[in-house]
Amino acid sequence: MNRLDETARGVFTIAVTPFLPDGTLDLASIDRMVDFYVEKGATGLTILGIMGEAGKLSAAESEAVIRHVVARTRLPVIVGVSAPGLAAIRYLAERSMEIGAVGVMVAPPWTLRTDAQILGYYRDVADTLGDIPFVLQDFPLVTNVVISAETVLKIVEDCPNCVMLKHEDWPGLDKIGALRAASDAGARRISILCGNGGQFLPEEMRRGADGAMTGFAYPEMMAGVVAAQDAGDAERAQDIFDAYLPVIRYESQPGLGLAVRKYILAKRGAIAHDTVRRPGKPLSAGTIRDLDFLMTRLERRLADLQS
Amino acid sequence: MNRLDETARGVFTIAVTPFLPDGTLDLASIDRMVDFYVEKGATGLTILGIMGEAGKLSAAESEAVIRHVVARTRLPVIVGVSAPGLAAIRYLAERSMEIGAVGVMVAPPWTLRTDAQILGYYRDVADTLGDIPFVLQDFPLVTNVVISAETVLKIVEDCPNCVMLKHEDWPGLDKIGALRAASDAGARRISILCGNGGQFLPEEMRRGADGAMTGFAYPEMMAGVVAAQDAGDAERAQDIFDAYLPVIRYESQPGLGLAVRKYILAKRGAIAHDTVRRPGKPLSAGTIRDLDFLMTRLERRLADLQS
Amino acid sequence: MNRLDETARGVFTIAVTPFLPDGTLDLASIDRMVDFYVEKGATGLTILGIMGEAGKLSAAESEAVIRHVVARTRLPVIVGVSAPGLAAIRYLAERSMEIGAVGVMVAPPWTLRTDAQILGYYRDVADTLGDIPFVLQDFPLVTNVVISAETVLKIVEDCPNCVMLKHEDWPGLDKIGALRAASDAGARRISILCGNGGQFLPEEMRRGADGAMTGFAYPEMMAGVVAAQDAGDAERAQDIFDAYLPVIRYESQPGLGLAVRKYILAKRGAIAHDTVRRPGKPLSAGTIRDLDFLMTRLERRLADLQS
Amino acid sequence: MNRLDETARGVFTIAVTPFLPDGTLDLASIDRMVDFYVEKGATGLTILGIMGEAGKLSAAESEAVIRHVVARTRLPVIVGVSAPGLAAIRYLAERSMEIGAVGVMVAPPWTLRTDAQILGYYRDVADTLGDIPFVLQDFPLVTNVVISAETVLKIVEDCPNCVMLKHEDWPGLDKIGALRAASDAGARRISILCGNGGQFLPEEMRRGADGAMTGFAYPEMMAGVVAAQDAGDAERAQDIFDAYLPVIRYESQPGLGLAVRKYILAKRGAIAHDTVRRPGKPLSAGTIRDLDFLMTRLERRLADLQS
Repeated sequence: MNRLDETARGVFTIAVTPFLPDGTLDLASIDRMVDFYVEKGATGLTILGIMGEAGKLSAAESEAVIRHVVARTRLPVIVGVSAPGLAAIRYLAERSMEIGAVGVMVAPPWTLRTDAQILGYYRDVADTLGDIPFVLQDFPLVTNVVISAETVLKIVEDCPNCVMLKHEDWPGLDKIGALRAASDAGARRISILCGNGGQFLPEEMRRGADGAMTGFAYPEMMAGVVAAQDAGDAERAQDIFDAYLPVIRYESQPGLGLAVRKYILAKRGAIAHDTVRRPGKPLSAGTIRDLDFLMTRLERRLADLQS
Repeated sequence: MNRLDETARGVFTIAVTPFLPDGTLDLASIDRMVDFYVEKGATGLTILGIMGEAGKLSAAESEAVIRHVVARTRLPVIVGVSAPGLAAIRYLAERSMEIGAVGVMVAPPWTLRTDAQILGYYRDVADTLGDIPFVLQDFPLVTNVVISAETVLKIVEDCPNCVMLKHEDWPGLDKIGALRAASDAGARRISILCGNGGQFLPEEMRRGADGAMTGFAYPEMMAGVVAAQDAGDAERAQDIFDAYLPVIRYESQPGLGLAVRKYILAKRGAIAHDTVRRPGKPLSAGTIRDLDFLMTRLERRLADLQS
Repeated sequence: MNRLDETARGVFTIAVTPFLPDGTLDLASIDRMVDFYVEKGATGLTILGIMGEAGKLSAAESEAVIRHVVARTRLPVIVGVSAPGLAAIRYLAERSMEIGAVGVMVAPPWTLRTDAQILGYYRDVADTLGDIPFVLQDFPLVTNVVISAETVLKIVEDCPNCVMLKHEDWPGLDKIGALRAASDAGARRISILCGNGGQFLPEEMRRGADGAMTGFAYPEMMAGVVAAQDAGDAERAQDIFDAYLPVIRYESQPGLGLAVRKYILAKRGAIAHDTVRRPGKPLSAGTIRDLDFLMTRLERRLADLQS
Repeated sequence: MNRLDETARGVFTIAVTPFLPDGTLDLASIDRMVDFYVEKGATGLTILGIMGEAGKLSAAESEAVIRHVVARTRLPVIVGVSAPGLAAIRYLAERSMEIGAVGVMVAPPWTLRTDAQILGYYRDVADTLGDIPFVLQDFPLVTNVVISAETVLKIVEDCPNCVMLKHEDWPGLDKIGALRAASDAGARRISILCGNGGQFLPEEMRRGADGAMTGFAYPEMMAGVVAAQDAGDAERAQDIFDAYLPVIRYESQPGLGLAVRKYILAKRGAIAHDTVRRPGKPLSAGTIRDLDFLMTRLERRLADLQS
C-alpha cells in the first residue's frame, strides 16, 4: 500500500514510543517493538499518536521515530500529525509522506464546539493536506470534541482525502450503525477502525467496523477477535475478548493507561524499558501488584481457552 | 442504623426509579425492586442519585419514592439531594430524614475548579446540613469536578458530618490508597464505597475500600466480590468479577448505561418496565441484540463457575 | 400583554432577588425594586434568572417572589424556570403562568454539545411546555453550551412556542445579523433581547436586536440607548452608553458581578441591603473603593452629558 | 536587560505577527510594527503568544519572527513557548535565548485541573528550563485552567526562575491584592503585568500591578495609564482609560479580537495588511462599520481630552 485508502481493514497497532531509563529515545527497542507487533498480527502501524507521546517529542525525535519504523517494516504506517495550527500539520504530513508513511491522522483541537466549527476545521485540514489521505480521530474523552454522526458524514462528503475514521467515541456503537446505514444508502464508505483500547471490539465489528486501531499490549487479542468475527464466529470472538477483558479494562484507565501498556510490553519483551516521559509518572506498587496478578490469571485463562 | 456513620460497609445498591410505559411513577415496581435488591445481597440502598433520574422527578414524586422505599425495607436508605443551591439541598435533606433516611449524598456543581472552591462548597454544605450525615460523591466523569485526595482529606477534616466517600474517580485506585494511608496515619477514617458500575471493585477492595455503592443490574456480583475479598480470597473475588465483566463494561457506557441497566432489571423481573424518562432514549435494536447475547453467555459462565 | 409573543420590544430588566442581612427574603425591597425598575424605564421584568439567584431559593421562596412581583406591577413578567429535568420545568412554568407571568425562560443544561443534542433538548422543552411561550437563553459563558445561528433557527422552526431569544453569546454581533438575515428571508421572526450586562447594546441594536434583557444597575442606560437607537440617533445612543461603560465593564465580571450590582442598587436606594446568598461572597474593600470611585465619576459625566 | 527578572515594569506589548494577503510572513511589516510599538511607549515586547498566532507558524517561521524582532530593537523581548510537551518547550526556549530573548512565557495545557496538577506542571517546566527565566501566563478564559492565588504563590516558592505573572484571570483584581499581600508579608515578589486587552488596567495598577502586557491596538493607552498611575494621578489614569474603553471592549471579544486588533493596526499604519491566518476569518461588513464608527469617535474624544 502506497497510500491509505477507504479499503483498509484489520489491525493497525498504535505504537508506543520506547525510551531509555534516562528518557532518551530507545531506537533499538523500536526495532524489537515493530517485529513484535508484526508477529502478533498487526496489518498496519500508527505512530506518534496520543499514546505515542507525540507531544513530548522534539521535531528531530519525531522524524527519527518515523524513519526507524518505516525502515523496519513493509506494513503501512500512519503518522499522527495533530498540532495547534495548519502550518505545523502540513509540515509534519509532508515530511511523513516523504519518509514513507501511507497517510496521517488528525484529532480536533479542544476548543471546537458546534457542528459547523468542526466541519470547518476539517475542511481546512483537508485543503491543507491536498492529496495526502488522512484519518479523522474521533475521541471525545480525550479531545473534548463531540462529533455527531451527521457531522462525520458531512466531513466525508466534503473532504475526499478523509479515508478513515478512528472511532473512539463512547458510547459509540449506534454511531457505527448510523455511519454504515448511511454508506449502505449511498454515502461514500470510508474505513472504520476502532480504538478505545479495544473495550468494545466484538460489538464494534458486529456493527460494521473494519477492524481495530488501538495499542492494547496484547495485539493478538485484536487480531484474534477480528479474524473470528470475519469468519462469522461471534462466540469465538467474544471468548477471546473476554479472556483479555480484565486487562483491557485495567489498561483503559485514562492518563494511567500508557504506563500500564508500557509495563506489560516491557514484561513481554517487546520493549526494553517501561519508561514514560514526564509528566507521566511511574506506576505505584499497588498498580504493579494488580497487573502481575491480572497477567498471571490471563495466562491461565488463555491456556484454558486453547485446551 | 438510624444515622449513617463512618463504619458503614458492604453493598449499598443505587436504586433505579421505575416508570410505567407512559412515564408515570411505577410504585408497585418499587416494592419488587427493593425486595430484589435485598434478596441479591444489598446491605443498604441509595435512592434519587444520578442513575435514579432524580433530576427528572417533581418534588412530589421524589417524596413518594422516598416514602415507598423506606416503608418497604429495614435496610438503611441514603437519599441523593444534590441541587443547584443550598436552600434546596437543606429542604430535601430535612424531608428525607423526617421520612426515615439515614443520610444524604451530595455531588458538587459542575462549575467548581480549584481546591479552595471545592473545599468551600463542601464547608457550606456541611454547615447547611447541620447534624445530618452526608456522603461526598466524587464522580468527575459526570460532574466535571476533579477532587484531589488532599482536598478530600481537608473536607473530612473540616466537616464532621461527612461520613462516607462515594468513590468513582477514574483512575482512582491510588487515591483510595492515599486516603487509607492518611487515615492509618491519624486522619479521621470515613467509609469508602465504590461506584463506577463496579468496574474496579476487586482492586478497590484490595486498596482498602469498604464495599460498593453502585447499581449494576446484578447486585449479587458486588455482594459476592465483597464477601470473597472480606474472606481474603482474591482469586475467588476476581473469578466472580470476571464472569460479570463483559456486562459490567457494557452497562458502564455513559448516558446509555441507565437504559441498559433498566433493560436487564426488567428482563430479570426486578421491575415491570425498562422505561427511561425523556430525554433518555430507548435502546436500539443493535444494543438489545448485544445485551441478549451477553446475558445468555453470562448465565453459561455462571453455571461453569459454580460447577 | 397576557402572553409573551414575538413582538416584544424594549427593556426587560433582569431583577435581582433582595435579601435581608440574615439571608431571608426581603419582600419589602421587592416592592421598592419593582417601582425603581419601572421608574427607570423598564417595559418588562424577568425574574428568577441566574442573576436572580433562582438556584438558591426554595420552591416556596420562588413562588413568593413571583407573587410579589406580579402583584406590584402591570408590566409583563417572565420567569426563569431552568431546572435539571423536564418535570421540574413543567411544574415551575405552570405555577408561574397561574400566578400571572406572561412566559418563561429556559437555559440549556451544561452537558449538551452537538447541534442535534441542543435541538433535541429544546424540542423536548417546547413539547413539555405546551402552549406556554418561552425564551431561549443563549449564554455560553455561563451555561457551557454553544448554540450556532443555524441551531437557533432550527429551534425557531420546530418550536412555535419559542418566541424570544435572550442573546448573550460573546462575540455575538454577527449572530444577530445572521438571524435577522434569515427572518428577512422568510424564517419566523422572533424577538431578540440582549443580555451580557449590556456590554454591546448599541452595536446589538444596530444589528437588529429589539432591545435589552439585562440587569445592569442603571436601567436608564438601557432605556436611553434603546430610545436613541429607535430614534435613529446612533451617536446619542453611543454617548449615553459610553458614559456608563466603565461601570458596565466592572459589573460584567463573572461571579463577582451580582454582588457589584446589588451594591449599586442598594446605594441607589432600589433595595435595602446588598446581601448575596451563599456561596456568594461580600465585596472586598478594594472592590468597594473601585465602585465608589466609578460611581462618583459617572455622576460627573452624566452631568456633562446633559449640559 | 539580558535576562528578565522580578523588577520588570511598564508596558510589554503583545506583538501580532503580520502576514501578507496570501498568508506568508510579512517581514517588512515586523520592522514597522516594532518601531510603532516603541514610539507608542512600549518598554518591552512579547512575541509568539496566543495573539501572535504562534500555533499557526511553522518552526522556521517562528524563528524568523524572533530574529527579526530582536534585530530591530534594544527593548527586552519575551517569547511565548507554550507547547504540548516539555521537549518542545525546552527546544523553543533555548533557541529563543540564543537568538537574544530575555525570557519566555508558558501557558498551562488545558487538561490541568487540581492545584497539585498545576503546581506539578510548572515544577516540570521550571526544571526543564533550568536557568531561563519564565513568565507564568494565567488566562483561564482561553486556557481552561483556573489557578488560585495560593497555587501561584506555591509556584513562585518552588520555581526560582518564575519571575513574572502575566495576569489575565477574570475577575482577577482581588487576586492581585492577595499576591501583593503575600509578598508584603515575605513571599518572593515577582513582577505582575496585566493582560486581558487592558480592560481593567487602572484598577489593576491600583491593586499593585507593575504594568501591562497586552496587545491593545493603541499601546499609548497602556503607557498613559501606567504613567499617570505611577504619578499617583488616578483620575487622569481613568480619564485616559475611559476614552479608549469603547474600543478596548470591542477588541476584547474572544476569537474575534485578533482580527479587530489587526484591522486597527493596519488602519493606523503599523502593519501593511490585516490578514489573519486560517482558521481566522476576515471581519464582517457590520464589524468594520462598528470599528470605523468607534475609531472616529475615539479621535474626537482624545482631542477633547487634550484640550
